[in-house]
Amino acid sequence: MSEKLWGGRFSTGTDSLVEEFSASIAVDRRLYAQDILGSMAHARMLGRVGVLTPEEVATIVSGLGEVRSEIEAGRMVFRPALEDIHMHIESRLTELVGEVGKKLHTARSRNDQVATDLRLYAREALDDLRGAVGRLQEVFIDLAEREADTVMPGFTHMQVAQPVSFGHHCLAYVEMLHRDSQRLADARTRVNVLPLGAAALAGTTFPIDRWDVARQLGFAAIAENSLDAVSDRDFVMEILADLAILAVHLSRLAEELILWMSPPFAFIDLPDSFCTGSSIMPQKKNPDVAELVRGKSGRVIGDLVALLVLMKGQPLAYNRDNQEDKEGFFDALDSVRASVEILARMLPGLTVRREAMRVQAEKGFATATDLADYLVRKGLPFRDAHAVVGRAVRLAQERAMALEAMPLTELQALSPLIGEDVYAVLTLEGSLNARRHPGGTAPETVRAAATRARDRLHREQA
Amino acid sequence: MSEKLWGGRFSTGTDSLVEEFSASIAVDRRLYAQDILGSMAHARMLGRVGVLTPEEVATIVSGLGEVRSEIEAGRMVFRPALEDIHMHIESRLTELVGEVGKKLHTARSRNDQVATDLRLYAREALDDLRGAVGRLQEVFIDLAEREADTVMPGFTHMQVAQPVSFGHHCLAYVEMLHRDSQRLADARTRVNVLPLGAAALAGTTFPIDRWDVARQLGFAAIAENSLDAVSDRDFVMEILADLAILAVHLSRLAEELILWMSPPFAFIDLPDSFCTGSSIMPQKKNPDVAELVRGKSGRVIGDLVALLVLMKGQPLAYNRDNQEDKEGFFDALDSVRASVEILARMLPGLTVRREAMRVQAEKGFATATDLADYLVRKGLPFRDAHAVVGRAVRLAQERAMALEAMPLTELQALSPLIGEDVYAVLTLEGSLNARRHPGGTAPETVRAAATRARDRLHREQA
Amino acid sequence: MSEKLWGGRFSTGTDSLVEEFSASIAVDRRLYAQDILGSMAHARMLGRVGVLTPEEVATIVSGLGEVRSEIEAGRMVFRPALEDIHMHIESRLTELVGEVGKKLHTARSRNDQVATDLRLYAREALDDLRGAVGRLQEVFIDLAEREADTVMPGFTHMQVAQPVSFGHHCLAYVEMLHRDSQRLADARTRVNVLPLGAAALAGTTFPIDRWDVARQLGFAAIAENSLDAVSDRDFVMEILADLAILAVHLSRLAEELILWMSPPFAFIDLPDSFCTGSSIMPQKKNPDVAELVRGKSGRVIGDLVALLVLMKGQPLAYNRDNQEDKEGFFDALDSVRASVEILARMLPGLTVRREAMRVQAEKGFATATDLADYLVRKGLPFRDAHAVVGRAVRLAQERAMALEAMPLTELQALSPLIGEDVYAVLTLEGSLNARRHPGGTAPETVRAAATRARDRLHREQA
Amino acid sequence: MSEKLWGGRFSTGTDSLVEEFSASIAVDRRLYAQDILGSMAHARMLGRVGVLTPEEVATIVSGLGEVRSEIEAGRMVFRPALEDIHMHIESRLTELVGEVGKKLHTARSRNDQVATDLRLYAREALDDLRGAVGRLQEVFIDLAEREADTVMPGFTHMQVAQPVSFGHHCLAYVEMLHRDSQRLADARTRVNVLPLGAAALAGTTFPIDRWDVARQLGFAAIAENSLDAVSDRDFVMEILADLAILAVHLSRLAEELILWMSPPFAFIDLPDSFCTGSSIMPQKKNPDVAELVRGKSGRVIGDLVALLVLMKGQPLAYNRDNQEDKEGFFDALDSVRASVEILARMLPGLTVRREAMRVQAEKGFATATDLADYLVRKGLPFRDAHAVVGRAVRLAQERAMALEAMPLTELQALSPLIGEDVYAVLTLEGSLNARRHPGGTAPETVRAAATRARDRLHREQA
Repeated sequence: MSEKLWGGRFSTGTDSLVEEFSASIAVDRRLYAQDILGSMAHARMLGRVGVLTPEEVATIVSGLGEVRSEIEAGRMVFRPALEDIHMHIESRLTELVGEVGKKLHTARSRNDQVATDLRLYAREALDDLRGAVGRLQEVFIDLAEREADTVMPGFTHMQVAQPVSFGHHCLAYVEMLHRDSQRLADARTRVNVLPLGAAALAGTTFPIDRWDVARQLGFAAIAENSLDAVSDRDFVMEILADLAILAVHLSRLAEELILWMSPPFAFIDLPDSFCTGSSIMPQKKNPDVAELVRGKSGRVIGDLVALLVLMKGQPLAYNRDNQEDKEGFFDALDSVRASVEILARMLPGLTVRREAMRVQAEKGFATATDLADYLVRKGLPFRDAHAVVGRAVRLAQERAMALEAMPLTELQALSPLIGEDVYAVLTLEGSLNARRHPGGTAPETVRAAATRARDRLHREQA
Repeated sequence: MSEKLWGGRFSTGTDSLVEEFSASIAVDRRLYAQDILGSMAHARMLGRVGVLTPEEVATIVSGLGEVRSEIEAGRMVFRPALEDIHMHIESRLTELVGEVGKKLHTARSRNDQVATDLRLYAREALDDLRGAVGRLQEVFIDLAEREADTVMPGFTHMQVAQPVSFGHHCLAYVEMLHRDSQRLADARTRVNVLPLGAAALAGTTFPIDRWDVARQLGFAAIAENSLDAVSDRDFVMEILADLAILAVHLSRLAEELILWMSPPFAFIDLPDSFCTGSSIMPQKKNPDVAELVRGKSGRVIGDLVALLVLMKGQPLAYNRDNQEDKEGFFDALDSVRASVEILARMLPGLTVRREAMRVQAEKGFATATDLADYLVRKGLPFRDAHAVVGRAVRLAQERAMALEAMPLTELQALSPLIGEDVYAVLTLEGSLNARRHPGGTAPETVRAAATRARDRLHREQA
Repeated sequence: MSEKLWGGRFSTGTDSLVEEFSASIAVDRRLYAQDILGSMAHARMLGRVGVLTPEEVATIVSGLGEVRSEIEAGRMVFRPALEDIHMHIESRLTELVGEVGKKLHTARSRNDQVATDLRLYAREALDDLRGAVGRLQEVFIDLAEREADTVMPGFTHMQVAQPVSFGHHCLAYVEMLHRDSQRLADARTRVNVLPLGAAALAGTTFPIDRWDVARQLGFAAIAENSLDAVSDRDFVMEILADLAILAVHLSRLAEELILWMSPPFAFIDLPDSFCTGSSIMPQKKNPDVAELVRGKSGRVIGDLVALLVLMKGQPLAYNRDNQEDKEGFFDALDSVRASVEILARMLPGLTVRREAMRVQAEKGFATATDLADYLVRKGLPFRDAHAVVGRAVRLAQERAMALEAMPLTELQALSPLIGEDVYAVLTLEGSLNARRHPGGTAPETVRAAATRARDRLHREQA
Repeated sequence: MSEKLWGGRFSTGTDSLVEEFSASIAVDRRLYAQDILGSMAHARMLGRVGVLTPEEVATIVSGLGEVRSEIEAGRMVFRPALEDIHMHIESRLTELVGEVGKKLHTARSRNDQVATDLRLYAREALDDLRGAVGRLQEVFIDLAEREADTVMPGFTHMQVAQPVSFGHHCLAYVEMLHRDSQRLADARTRVNVLPLGAAALAGTTFPIDRWDVARQLGFAAIAENSLDAVSDRDFVMEILADLAILAVHLSRLAEELILWMSPPFAFIDLPDSFCTGSSIMPQKKNPDVAELVRGKSGRVIGDLVALLVLMKGQPLAYNRDNQEDKEGFFDALDSVRASVEILARMLPGLTVRREAMRVQAEKGFATATDLADYLVRKGLPFRDAHAVVGRAVRLAQERAMALEAMPLTELQALSPLIGEDVYAVLTLEGSLNARRHPGGTAPETVRAAATRARDRLHREQA
């Protein structure tokens, strides 16, 4: 029988299989710093309201500091029998400082304690992740400026649609990442609320000062309802949803990198140092980083699903099911953080094969819409112009030639509105440069958008 | 061969199985009002920048109004061959107003058109849903005030933990719904951005004024990047995630209602008009509404997963996969909206069986923590007080008696610190009333919290 | 107040919002034929065990036939107040045949009735789907034979890996579909079990003969436990999982079709009748069918998740949550069935651009592994051979030439083991033909595999 | 720059962040035994077909044995730079046995190697899990026999429906677990297929004998297509789906255990050694094991979703995304395996509170259906009998009495068909004993079903 801190009413000890099955220490030890920080704030508050003496507070706080040093020095022995990080720290504290250690858990429960730890952890993780997302945005903005004049075929349905600036394409990811960052910032306001004081579920009979603790720990608000405070994992669900959307963005990017690296495209090359080879095929250079980023989106979505499922049938207030909330949360945070970081490291080394992009842009009748617009400006209703150009394309395709290679007489046979000036419209550069409205793909518009995006990013980070 | 508006370059018509497989009209006809509104704004803008004449604009706008009337009168014939709501409306417009109808699609594509429609729809749906969520909050606040003094056993792990006010329990749901409402409001700011002007993916060669359209349609911003504008479905994913979390809250509530209605609990009764019977068992009165609400959380989570999966592998910009974004979105909106509404209608008729709640609260040693706190106030470290009370509970359980029924001498045998004043601590009301800190369960604290919640709600709705 | 068939113990009628919220008739009317079939068998059995007279049985059975005719003629009026298909049919039966109709529900409940209906429906749907999957396998086998000699670059990591036969590639899908078909067959054995007789959850006091009903309906077994019989939806979960895996296969295929249609690849062309155009870009021909198939995989996975979530927290036996089991089930069946069918219709019209495949195969050092194997046969350990070829590839790449274009002296500088015979090894056909072991890609091996696959398919369908 | 075994064609080494990001050794080291077994079989086969000499085979096989000993003794140093378990083992082998170690990778690739390892691992895991599931079935069969006569209220909609035998309830789980076991057995036949010989994707030029390897490793078949062999992860998806369904069953059971332990029910008690306490509330005894089992269903569903998402967009053949297939697979296997095991350990210690079950069964008009059936036997159509009993229940409820407590005259006022013999029908035992058909809840029927279930289990295990 192991000595449990809650064992008073039990006549037999815990089955060892149960200890192993229910211990969370392998996962929640990651929260040690937050747990100690929270305990220090709790102890100081208990001192200020008179539940602990100043000496007791001092002893506890310095003891907690010692426990932290031990953990960081790798000297703490973790054992399933002590269940979780909270019990490990309290138990070690009492070994170090004696009886007064047993007073630390006054006016709180593990239920509000773990919720506090997890929110502190989440807050740091969000700030850290937003920093990394900002760096990745910066990389794309740099690329956008560098490649504003690079013409690539824009695709819809993976068919060549219209020519776009590759820099413009890069800025699309800046917009996605910007929304990701906004979502994470919104989530942060809901994370930054103190649950401590809810105790097990009903609050406590001690004259606690919750705002004092909130101020110490930098929380902007306190949870309004004790039952909700211990049962709420909305902030984890919300962050996981934000991470899933961010992972979807990274997966889309990864999909594009993989395609562009594929020899039929050959639009880009990635540095050797970010690729790996094959154990059997000596010629292979594989974009593994992108593939893994794409693959990791699956696990992040899975982590989100796991938590939604976990929560959906639970009556109030706390149930042990909730212990399962952390592993997937950490996993998703780690997966997305590492993906963002490695992309931000890899992409500055991207080689853009401008000629290959141009060749493909020229092959796909990419300026057909420009021709239709031209006819509209000559007076044809758009829908009729569309039909005329459709026939022109069919003809060109049968002859295996580009639109701009068709003689004027043939074009005029399709529509007498077509004049000599049509050929300017059919060039890739002409097409690009004509799209100058906000959000458009003209190189100078792209450069202006990049500048705006950089300013916005710096404002946010300020 | 059916006459497609895009059919110029095709040599054969569309296979009828393909028409059926790819038509979205059964789903997207729901967007007709938004589509017409967007087209009107687009036409007016084309007029203002000189692409259409004032007469053309007038003809188109009035023709669109006529199409709307026909649809609302049920006179529109929907056919898979016309694919989607956009083609139905444009095609009918041209039938009604002639050649000028063919000019409407100038400077836009279905890609930016559908994104605009969907954002207009989402914006309305969010506002509507937030209103319903507010009404449900109001119902809970009313209940909280009515039942502030009602003592129920608070549960953790479905074991009796500590007595709480039933009103306090109701307020926990107010907090959850408040966060839901905040999340939806945050999502709205990201919904309220105009994609129109992105055309297929690259913008257009016409001198469009995107801010003019934005102002007409009430959008607060315009999409910064044309590729992103047509490929972005973040707002759908984000709303689905918000709906999934909201559905999880409703499912938790439903789980509690079902439990509380179950005879061993018998904490509540629901009105006959919100229950149904059995085809075989004549005595049955089933809480079907709660069960269906609980069940619907599954489909909402499924809808979220479906969209994340849909998006995660798509290269930019638009791919036809995206057509599948709407059905799940509408389904989740409908499911959650209906659940919120029916709960708001049902809960005011809730009968609370206060005596049954009290009986259960008395059975479970719910004030054991109060006894431990009492010992702490007498000078025992909390961890030791916990152990003393644990032994007291074990003893009481062996004798099948409540803690407060144990004679003083026996209690004192466990700890000499216990005095006559312990019995006041062991009452349910004593326990409740001692928890007066913010977030606590004392009836007067609950009433104050209800007032604050009501004020907050009214502020938000103002 | 509407007249409910179960309304005896209720003092007020059902709220109309509740009727609408809880009615399932819009979804479960699809089960009408199965419901009537099951009721007929139930009535006949009740006759045989003496609970109904022969005349009563005859009246009921013929009345049920009449109800079926009315439904199939579109003459049945469906109303939410009658909740579901079971109540509609029983109620209409009683209108048609009078009092005796009220005897039909003896010894059963809607709980075992709907489980029976759903299993009958699932059984038919599985058989139908397996037929369609078989037809798609046949299409791929035909393609495999037609294209056994077509050389394409095999990809790993989307990089050119080794040359393969396009017919060989087609047979990979035959294997996937074969496993799908096996899984569906395995599921069928678990579907084909009769729940009827379980009544609400506990069985019935009437002397029913469950095997009689099973025989009438073609069930191979009867459910062994009445509680399980009404609460079990394993067969739906299992089929949904099978459908999700099948949808993943179709999505992978669709991804490949989309890539191969993309101009940089241009490996294939799809018939005009299976593609659609763009509302703005006149030149576009989009592989919409493949994109929709790919997109639909998301909803099927979502449907699976929805049901798993639905079931996971339910205590025994029946809960109303289960009503939500059908919509996603039907949706997934429809989505997958339609995807399989349309692919089987489209793929015979596939144009294979053999020259484009060959060009890409020649570009990617696809025979580098053959060179390594050659060196192994000359005595070099594989790992060393791999390193030599790796250096050869780097050299060739620097000079922008193919391996087979390098002069013998240069190759010999990398390894003196290389002789004149190396050039035969470096050809695409040489590479293909050398892989003749079972599962290999040599054209004749592919043809033999196609024959085996066809035989296997015919055996299974026999 | 680290020395990669595939590094020949690379001009720079791998970025250390990439090594860390892409290394799988922390996860796949679990496959060491399977990898070595597979390599031994491969080497022996290479010997038999003449690619290796007998001496080389002997050296390699004994070297591999030595590597295994080192790993099992904890002496292997694992490093991210060596990527995965395959490279670790090959690299260590070559250190131990010299040049000949470099010959092991002849005629194979990591692609077919890892697929083989994973199938070997899955096969063992399935057999092991099926054993554990069988033990849990046995526990339930024992309980069923012990508690065949125990009357409990059967619930639908969490309302008292009809009395059932608690033993009968236990057998419902035996049926679920039986289907789980069948599904796992079906999956095993699809797992037990050898992919080795597919090499990277196209097979190999060496004269391999795949059936020789299959026989050595106990595979019943060889993969028919090399592309499919390396890209197929169906078996992982299928097993994950089976595990998810099994986890749903365990979650439902856990939900019931938690409810039954809750004081308002108090139907059961669990051993102290399988429960834990609270850090704050000294009286608490929580059913943590059941809560964790319930919670773990979420992660298993999440693992399934993750893999479906991972696979759904991948073109053939192998992509690095697949590396992510293992962690979730192991996690789900571990979670389910541990849950099954701990339940099988805990449930024999279950205390059944028969009196509490009976009290609740008596409270809920559980025999109302028996009364309706009684009236049918007296000649009333079932639907009318249902209505009569419904009124009887409403009356009894208004008077707060049980049906069997109502005087005969009052019952007769509701229907003159009711006679003195009605009271026998209204007892719990009478109700139970009347349900004797197969699948029914009469105690003797339950005992017979338990015997059948035990026989079936033993047959399957034989």
